[in-house]
Amino acid sequence: MDFGYDETTERLRERLLRFMTECVHPAEPVFDQQAQERDDPWAVPPIVTELQAEARRRGLWNLFLPGEHGAGLSNLQYAPLAEITGRSPGLAPVALNCAAPDTGNMELLALFGSAEQRERWLTPLLQARIRSAFAMTEPAVASSDATNIATRIARDGDEYVVNGRKWFVTGAMDPRCEVFIVMGRTDPAAPRHRQQSQIIVPRDTPGVTVRRGLRTFGYDDSDHGGHAEIDFVDVRVPAGNLIGQEGSGFAISQARLGPGRVHHCMRLVGMAERAVELMCRRVSDRHAFGGPLAAQGVIRDWIADARVRLEQARLLVLKTAWLMDTVGNRQAHSEIQAIKIVVPETAQWIIDRAIQAHGAAGVSQDTPLARLWARARALRLADGPDEVHRQSLARRELRRHQPRAASPV
Amino acid sequence: MDFGYDETTERLRERLLRFMTECVHPAEPVFDQQAQERDDPWAVPPIVTELQAEARRRGLWNLFLPGEHGAGLSNLQYAPLAEITGRSPGLAPVALNCAAPDTGNMELLALFGSAEQRERWLTPLLQARIRSAFAMTEPAVASSDATNIATRIARDGDEYVVNGRKWFVTGAMDPRCEVFIVMGRTDPAAPRHRQQSQIIVPRDTPGVTVRRGLRTFGYDDSDHGGHAEIDFVDVRVPAGNLIGQEGSGFAISQARLGPGRVHHCMRLVGMAERAVELMCRRVSDRHAFGGPLAAQGVIRDWIADARVRLEQARLLVLKTAWLMDTVGNRQAHSEIQAIKIVVPETAQWIIDRAIQAHGAAGVSQDTPLARLWARARALRLADGPDEVHRQSLARRELRRHQPRAASPV
Amino acid sequence: MDFGYDETTERLRERLLRFMTECVHPAEPVFDQQAQERDDPWAVPPIVTELQAEARRRGLWNLFLPGEHGAGLSNLQYAPLAEITGRSPGLAPVALNCAAPDTGNMELLALFGSAEQRERWLTPLLQARIRSAFAMTEPAVASSDATNIATRIARDGDEYVVNGRKWFVTGAMDPRCEVFIVMGRTDPAAPRHRQQSQIIVPRDTPGVTVRRGLRTFGYDDSDHGGHAEIDFVDVRVPAGNLIGQEGSGFAISQARLGPGRVHHCMRLVGMAERAVELMCRRVSDRHAFGGPLAAQGVIRDWIADARVRLEQARLLVLKTAWLMDTVGNRQAHSEIQAIKIVVPETAQWIIDRAIQAHGAAGVSQDTPLARLWARARALRLADGPDEVHRQSLARRELRRHQPRAASPV
Amino acid sequence: MDFGYDETTERLRERLLRFMTECVHPAEPVFDQQAQERDDPWAVPPIVTELQAEARRRGLWNLFLPGEHGAGLSNLQYAPLAEITGRSPGLAPVALNCAAPDTGNMELLALFGSAEQRERWLTPLLQARIRSAFAMTEPAVASSDATNIATRIARDGDEYVVNGRKWFVTGAMDPRCEVFIVMGRTDPAAPRHRQQSQIIVPRDTPGVTVRRGLRTFGYDDSDHGGHAEIDFVDVRVPAGNLIGQEGSGFAISQARLGPGRVHHCMRLVGMAERAVELMCRRVSDRHAFGGPLAAQGVIRDWIADARVRLEQARLLVLKTAWLMDTVGNRQAHSEIQAIKIVVPETAQWIIDRAIQAHGAAGVSQDTPLARLWARARALRLADGPDEVHRQSLARRELRRHQPRAASPV
Repeated sequence: MDFGYDETTERLRERLLRFMTECVHPAEPVFDQQAQERDDPWAVPPIVTELQAEARRRGLWNLFLPGEHGAGLSNLQYAPLAEITGRSPGLAPVALNCAAPDTGNMELLALFGSAEQRERWLTPLLQARIRSAFAMTEPAVASSDATNIATRIARDGDEYVVNGRKWFVTGAMDPRCEVFIVMGRTDPAAPRHRQQSQIIVPRDTPGVTVRRGLRTFGYDDSDHGGHAEIDFVDVRVPAGNLIGQEGSGFAISQARLGPGRVHHCMRLVGMAERAVELMCRRVSDRHAFGGPLAAQGVIRDWIADARVRLEQARLLVLKTAWLMDTVGNRQAHSEIQAIKIVVPETAQWIIDRAIQAHGAAGVSQDTPLARLWARARALRLADGPDEVHRQSLARRELRRHQPRAASPV
Repeated sequence: MDFGYDETTERLRERLLRFMTECVHPAEPVFDQQAQERDDPWAVPPIVTELQAEARRRGLWNLFLPGEHGAGLSNLQYAPLAEITGRSPGLAPVALNCAAPDTGNMELLALFGSAEQRERWLTPLLQARIRSAFAMTEPAVASSDATNIATRIARDGDEYVVNGRKWFVTGAMDPRCEVFIVMGRTDPAAPRHRQQSQIIVPRDTPGVTVRRGLRTFGYDDSDHGGHAEIDFVDVRVPAGNLIGQEGSGFAISQARLGPGRVHHCMRLVGMAERAVELMCRRVSDRHAFGGPLAAQGVIRDWIADARVRLEQARLLVLKTAWLMDTVGNRQAHSEIQAIKIVVPETAQWIIDRAIQAHGAAGVSQDTPLARLWARARALRLADGPDEVHRQSLARRELRRHQPRAASPV
Repeated sequence: MDFGYDETTERLRERLLRFMTECVHPAEPVFDQQAQERDDPWAVPPIVTELQAEARRRGLWNLFLPGEHGAGLSNLQYAPLAEITGRSPGLAPVALNCAAPDTGNMELLALFGSAEQRERWLTPLLQARIRSAFAMTEPAVASSDATNIATRIARDGDEYVVNGRKWFVTGAMDPRCEVFIVMGRTDPAAPRHRQQSQIIVPRDTPGVTVRRGLRTFGYDDSDHGGHAEIDFVDVRVPAGNLIGQEGSGFAISQARLGPGRVHHCMRLVGMAERAVELMCRRVSDRHAFGGPLAAQGVIRDWIADARVRLEQARLLVLKTAWLMDTVGNRQAHSEIQAIKIVVPETAQWIIDRAIQAHGAAGVSQDTPLARLWARARALRLADGPDEVHRQSLARRELRRHQPRAASPV
Repeated sequence: MDFGYDETTERLRERLLRFMTECVHPAEPVFDQQAQERDDPWAVPPIVTELQAEARRRGLWNLFLPGEHGAGLSNLQYAPLAEITGRSPGLAPVALNCAAPDTGNMELLALFGSAEQRERWLTPLLQARIRSAFAMTEPAVASSDATNIATRIARDGDEYVVNGRKWFVTGAMDPRCEVFIVMGRTDPAAPRHRQQSQIIVPRDTPGVTVRRGLRTFGYDDSDHGGHAEIDFVDVRVPAGNLIGQEGSGFAISQARLGPGRVHHCMRLVGMAERAVELMCRRVSDRHAFGGPLAAQGVIRDWIADARVRLEQARLLVLKTAWLMDTVGNRQAHSEIQAIKIVVPETAQWIIDRAIQAHGAAGVSQDTPLARLWARARALRLADGPDEVHRQSLARRELRRHQPRAASPV
């Protein structure tokens, strides 16, 4: 047992921290300025492309992706790097081409895509020439239960025909988003976890209509491409666009979500770290009732609890990453669910205390806190609400404590 | 002891509920539509003026104001009515001319304004011909400690000269907002609670600059006039604009905040009631894992806790109103602080559970929940953060348990 | 709506407070001394009988019982008196002959007992000549689901034969406890809430064995007669011992528990008040790190939260009592469940903070706090665990928000 | 970074788990039986000595002690073993001679004791021939502030004279406890952390009076030697009994508490694991409302949260142990405080849920849960209340975020 980062990680952390200080943080006000001045509210401010070029130059590119296509890091090595990008979640992940949902889509294509699919879509994604989205959630049903998915993907000759409505398709409002991976039912009569398939639908296919952007609290989240509501009406794509086999949609989705959750969670740790830092600075600077706010016992309690909760959350994320590397995503399932449950909640609590320590400024646009909070809150619903993960984790725990059946000889 | 509403209250509740059903709720989508179509993002949608006319016709006008100028209700009679308006907090209070911050300002002018001040400002406010704002919080200092207020109000001949920067001046982005009541220091050498005064500053006075609107969790809150940052640079107003005596600013402010907090709290009860209703309907309609969400134990737990917490919060608000009526605002100080502490937190918790029960829709613009949540959250900072009230309430509680000193003779 | 106590209540509160100061609190150390010196650990210290005589002399007797048999108070009038007795929960309720479980049993006999049953058992109970117990919970099944009750009550000629094991029969270790009311199944084939009956079993009936006393967090609770485990083996009692009709056991039990819960809850409010008082005194007296503990912000937070939570809990208890008086126990069902859920939890939280403020002394026998805490904790399980009440309350709330079915004609 | 245990740890874990299964758990009912039958309530049941002999035979002895005197394990190696002993906290630690407070005292003597002191006291302690206690807390002052300590240790010729009253001297009610290490002030005029010294006082020294055992909740904690209140009146011991230098008492105490806290915390992890196991079994076995309790969503939520919180707590304890091994106790100070804050609270929460899942049995003597809970609760006060640690941890966190002063050169 060893709690120190390895050399590769330390080296990359240093390089990334330098990039954050020299490039990302200075770019934040530029981004805001450019965002305010753009005509199309979904256009990507040019500073993003500049940051991407610089990150690539510095060898900070596609760090999330194991194997030949990416930087080849393990989950455990990537986790502390993802954390650092969480300190500027609107800019840093995209600068490194490590932003959701593209990361999950790239991983999916790398693992399950055909050679043709990889050539056509993975290559430009790895180069950040295009972006992508993942269309799973539907407005009309509780999508946390995958068997509720109503979108149909029906074979018709050499094509599949897609019909349905999706929403909260994150990233799809970004004009550079050229492709959607759509989850739907190919065989409603199959066993419940064999009914679904995933298929690639280019954005410009006839029958695809991006209807509007959804908001989270008051934010349009244009910094990560918004969240679209999309209609698919008799959308025809070649049969070769299907990912994997018919009926493999649920399994692929499980595989895709694992690393995605770890990335989200590690970034949340970074977001919470930034909140702690902002809180500590604020309460040291502000004075009331005869001293700095930092002298008040209640505020110190927040700080202590923030630190204690954050350390625990980070360790669990790291251990989860280690398990994924050593025993595989499947065996790490309970831990992946555990961090999905606890990390957004922890980050949210910490950011909330930082908001409170800032007074009215905390809820305003003058600090990143309110926006960080909204992001953390939304992640308690993304990839299924916490409650679903709790029930599933508990089922496994209960099984562990069952009296074992007598083993035959 | 009697927990039933009196006849006047019952009669007005019935009338108001009918107004909500017949006019306010149907107006909600109209308001949103008009808001989206306006050119000036701060312009007031015309439906508001129509609702005001209708409310006045129905005898639902200025209900908040006791005494001759208003409807003459007691706090206890008004509280259940304010609760009902909380079910549509962006429309109902303003429709009845019972919206903050005008209510507090009208009460202040009615109690402490000179005849001339009342004639010039109270009369048009009572008729909803203009709106007003209250400029207390400053960006540069912890304003919860009134002695930190840095804005200067300096006598110069027949005039006062105001210099300072205020922010979170709620309502001031509304183009109809014609007047600010500004808190500042007239005598920095006086005892700490005698340094401040309040003064009336018309919006069009030279030297007044409304710089921008502040946001709360991404929302511009244009439905209640936004929150402005305002510069006052050598702003000159006649000496007669001072409210009350020099040095009375702190005392007036305390008097102003009392009823305001009760109104906020009672509306929060209504906001929470709406959240419970939306949650119950949603979980009855949605199905997952073989049944309606309403069949899940965890969700039932939320509903039960929501009901239990809400009942308690309402009772404490009502008792506080009763105390204000029977022993006066001063004697009800601890209870006023108590509801300021507990009601926003309770409402926030309940709305958060309703959000979670709605899944992604809960954080989006498709339900009122995310916006209600942001409003409740912001109220934990408005009028001073919870923490200040807790400390003060505890001091009083501690004094109650002191061994009493021997009373002389 | 009126939050003041009526005259009768005020008069009795004053009288009772005097009794507490003059008699009960001074008796507390005497009780502990006598308890320590007794040979039989279940014997009742003689000071109890003295207190009972004095209470009776002062007109403080059977206050809990409405109607002709008791003091004739309403629930709303009794509630604030029960609260006061909660400040010394081991002595005051029994001194006034208002202690559980006798109160519930007396009420049950008054309402449902035959003339003979009342004569034989109610009369001596009203005079505190004997005590009684209520045997419902069983060790082998989850008794919160009444249909799980396994004890059999079988008719055999002119007798009923009782077989089963009960536990947590509160009060039954007291040697003066002469009678048990036993819940069991008379007809396992009947509809689920018509299977049970209640029957009177004198302690000295052959086949009754009191096996041992159960403990709560190390305490034997001998001050309220302990909690017995009792075996009933072929116990024969006359058929006339059945209370009400066969099959009415569940209904009687519901009726019995209503007032009992309100009494428990109101006493818990008093227990919490005592904890607040002890906490405030302690933190004013103790010094650390340069000042009294009372100057520390965190401790003030506890005090403020304690006050805010306690006020809300009390109001809900009082409103529940008022509803029971005005619309009846059945219509007050949700509120009765609400206080069952929230009041023990609130008291427990407050007492825990008082313990923490006392340091090691708080968990020891040198303050009443640890014992008060254990009592509050146990009440989250007595009469069914909180969870059962939450589910039931939520079901009712959900029904309230259902779209109403079209009414016929 | 590596989250696997090393080989030594795995080997010892296996050996210890076998000892638990084969010896400790079977001894639990024997211990209870012998405890009930003993005449002296503080006498140690003979099964304890038998277990010790067996543990020694199996090479499971003094595992806590690094260096030549003990088993030579690192903190990181010992932590998972201590966790296992926590599953039977009244028997396993003492069986391995790894029970508080002897562990801390042995460590202290090994590090700071003179050769003579080690010979006289450390040797028999290492062999479990005697036991020891640590007398720090005083009833009259808030002992969490070390400068409050009032006990005097005054030099008089070749002797020191000790005067003062201590309490919560854990272990001192055990008749085998032959020696106390007493903390007192040698120089009240010295700087605040140089006033205290520690001195060895044999129990049979004239002037020492063990007055009584304190309880925690209703438990006398005789399984770990109770908690004594002790008077020291003109107690004379040779000057050579002083540990280290005059004025080093505070520093020694800090050194002593570090490993002690980690041991406590790791055992708490084991206590919580046992609670999870008992809870899971119970809810699988019990049925209500048509199914096992394990099918209820609320109970699954408890189980999920228990697992998530427990994993996090364990990781933080292990990391703290690793830091102590790699950078030293001083540099691990914040982490030591962090686990002191979070682990008892986590264990307490989990045990409380297990209690609730057990219904009335949970608070009784029929499961170990209520006792485990009381132990966890008391640990939130032992070694200083949580609040003191929170304030101190926050101070350090605040310093980390200070703008650094310009470094010279």
